[in-house]
Amino acid sequence: MEIPSRTELAVTSDGVPQRTGNNLDPWYANYAERAAGLAASEVRALFAVASRPEVVSLAGGMPFVSALPQDLIVSSMDKVMREQGPVALQYGSGQGIPALREQILEVMAIEGIRGAVDDVVTSTGSQQALDLVAKLFLDPGDVVLAEAPSYVGAMGVFRSYQANVVHVAMDEHGLIPEALRQTIAHLRGQGRRIKFLYTIPNFHNPAGVTLSAERRPEILEICRSNEILILEDNPYGLLHFDEPAPNALRSLDPEGVIYLGSFSKTLAPGFRVGWALAPHAIREKLILAAESAILSPSSFSQLVVSEYLATADWRAQIDTFRGVYRERKDAMVEALGEYLPQLSWTNPNGGFYVWVTMPDVLDSKQMLPRAVKELVAYTPGTAFFADGRGRHAMRLSFCYPTPEAIRLGIRRLATVVNGELDLLDTFAGTGTLQLPPSAGIESAPPSDLK
Amino acid sequence: MEIPSRTELAVTSDGVPQRTGNNLDPWYANYAERAAGLAASEVRALFAVASRPEVVSLAGGMPFVSALPQDLIVSSMDKVMREQGPVALQYGSGQGIPALREQILEVMAIEGIRGAVDDVVTSTGSQQALDLVAKLFLDPGDVVLAEAPSYVGAMGVFRSYQANVVHVAMDEHGLIPEALRQTIAHLRGQGRRIKFLYTIPNFHNPAGVTLSAERRPEILEICRSNEILILEDNPYGLLHFDEPAPNALRSLDPEGVIYLGSFSKTLAPGFRVGWALAPHAIREKLILAAESAILSPSSFSQLVVSEYLATADWRAQIDTFRGVYRERKDAMVEALGEYLPQLSWTNPNGGFYVWVTMPDVLDSKQMLPRAVKELVAYTPGTAFFADGRGRHAMRLSFCYPTPEAIRLGIRRLATVVNGELDLLDTFAGTGTLQLPPSAGIESAPPSDLK
Repeated sequence: MEIPSRTELAVTSDGVPQRTGNNLDPWYANYAERAAGLAASEVRALFAVASRPEVVSLAGGMPFVSALPQDLIVSSMDKVMREQGPVALQYGSGQGIPALREQILEVMAIEGIRGAVDDVVTSTGSQQALDLVAKLFLDPGDVVLAEAPSYVGAMGVFRSYQANVVHVAMDEHGLIPEALRQTIAHLRGQGRRIKFLYTIPNFHNPAGVTLSAERRPEILEICRSNEILILEDNPYGLLHFDEPAPNALRSLDPEGVIYLGSFSKTLAPGFRVGWALAPHAIREKLILAAESAILSPSSFSQLVVSEYLATADWRAQIDTFRGVYRERKDAMVEALGEYLPQLSWTNPNGGFYVWVTMPDVLDSKQMLPRAVKELVAYTPGTAFFADGRGRHAMRLSFCYPTPEAIRLGIRRLATVVNGELDLLDTFAGTGTLQLPPSAGIESAPPSDLK
Repeated sequence: MEIPSRTELAVTSDGVPQRTGNNLDPWYANYAERAAGLAASEVRALFAVASRPEVVSLAGGMPFVSALPQDLIVSSMDKVMREQGPVALQYGSGQGIPALREQILEVMAIEGIRGAVDDVVTSTGSQQALDLVAKLFLDPGDVVLAEAPSYVGAMGVFRSYQANVVHVAMDEHGLIPEALRQTIAHLRGQGRRIKFLYTIPNFHNPAGVTLSAERRPEILEICRSNEILILEDNPYGLLHFDEPAPNALRSLDPEGVIYLGSFSKTLAPGFRVGWALAPHAIREKLILAAESAILSPSSFSQLVVSEYLATADWRAQIDTFRGVYRERKDAMVEALGEYLPQLSWTNPNGGFYVWVTMPDVLDSKQMLPRAVKELVAYTPGTAFFADGRGRHAMRLSFCYPTPEAIRLGIRRLATVVNGELDLLDTFAGTGTLQLPPSAGIESAPPSDLK
């Protein structure tokens, strides 16, 4: 009997054979190429900081679930277990429970979407739908177009399938059509394969802007004529402060858009229920990918969400959330005006985030440890770019802290920013200033990512 | 402004532009190469049949959740919402809730596993952990070793990452060490990259056999000396009928084995809570992959499972399940002896499945439509092979139907088998017999896959 011996083995005192080697990971050589794309994001690193109670975290994206009618959720659960217990506890359809998919059509109708219940696929949060679409479409080297900046969690998914994100410029009206045209032409000229445009048209994460109604048909036409699929990610669409967001891109081109929706912001992320509405031909493959990944989404979670939608005044609850977030956004924008007038920022009409631009001399990533020392946290702008940009920007989220905490946080941030600017003034022209590198931030779970 | 026009556009009567083309899917050319591996499995096709109430389904893998103490589950939910509502409704750690991971260590200790809470990663069912491990390790063309036959849902995952499954022979004592050695040597001789051995050591799905205690160290040693990682999938391990299964492979080699566990069979699949226990170095990458795919598993589901484990006598509940499944297994094996003595079958000491081998003249896939006509369903053996084998075998599951239904189902199956054999006798030597191809089976959700 011959065994190829490619490993040196040693035996420890308890008799268990151990691999020896000069690498900390004995399986280092065995990972797939795509595993190299699985790096901890910069935003991830903030959680340990943000979770300390004395820190005002303007970094996370946690919805304010305490505004929910908890009794109603408990009674939904009880009813589900009483009336459909064995169904709730069992495996279910890989596509999702039909009754919930019908209700999802009602939710999407608010944004002008008419779809078929057969084309809705429920998922473990819309993040899973994002992952499945990426798995379905992205070969190594493919290009995904995305706004500049873009959602860090989406870029991570695309990277995990070895695709490259190419950013397209946006302004206060969202993605710029001419920039999209030029980027496509440029990439096509280089022979690159563009697989889809990933876009968050409403109350953008992280930029806080909304794609204008005027630009929507133009963006669709550019993608249509270039045969580029659109992946429309819309977790915040119903959380507007004044007038509603324009109708969804999906409402204007059912065959050209995969739409992603979520109950994480309009109800609660703890159930992990999101969905995709896909063109019919794609939908079939999406279900197969979903079944391969998890067999079926949680029957229990889906039934509770379905029962909540059936019995609660969920539209009124969304109004409540809108009021909560609007008050917090106002507090943030007012505090920025009061304490940091030398910076510029977006003033979103919905969603969770304000995008702040600092003078070029400041670096948000290098500044973060000082901010944490002053007990305020934010997300450095570089997290939202695939190409190293964003050093002079940061994302501030107003979804979770109270208005008072937000004001306190911005005041602390002003102390840090003004301190940095003073330092720079002091050393101006001497050429000796070196801002310290980030340090002391621990790795952390991803609840801060959305 | 130049737009490359690669698509012909037409406008329908409602004014919506439509892509034209000779393919039913306008995005046909855009899928990733791996999407070709996402085919509907043969087992999937059985659900529509199995769900008709008049059919005795011996095809599915649904646990008998009605044996659960539903009141206790409801009170666990109520307590979770009352005491930890805002946590249950919120995003959580990507690795999973620490309290639950501690309890998972207790569950695994029953099978001799000593692990660190830091190395447990909870997942959306163990299927997701399987998918994440595959994503982390499998490049196109890589080889996964698996028993012959193997779990259809695992082979689907490996195929979705463009890997190839190579089967290793097993007998009534499980995987055959010498066959494993020879297969590795043969593949290495061809220069193939073997990434891991996927194995279900206990109460195998679909074969119903258990890897003997004697063989376990030998299998581990073969893999260790060949630097092949082991992926140990153990959803049924605690559901033994007589003596417990031998200690887990993971208990003997913490650095060489990724262990997958699940609450789907010992509690309920509807929560979608499973886990992986990985070598420390791998665990970090697994968490990153999990976060990329779904941000975090459901906090609510995890807390309910955790509360159930803390308050219920879950060991006694597993005893109850064991009694239920044992009675059903006995009913099946007795009925097979009574009605189909000309076939052979495994007599499992736990789990959900019996593997039946028929005379070579019979084809289980071709026979299926006749079985369905006789109101009994099973899973053809070909579903569990990556290489076309299994035509003369079938998987019968005893987990869901009552003992009476099982006896009825086996009697019906005997009618079909005997009818086929009679037909073959009648036409013997004439060379004119053509068994009909499978037909009339609709696509279906995946709750039948486990």
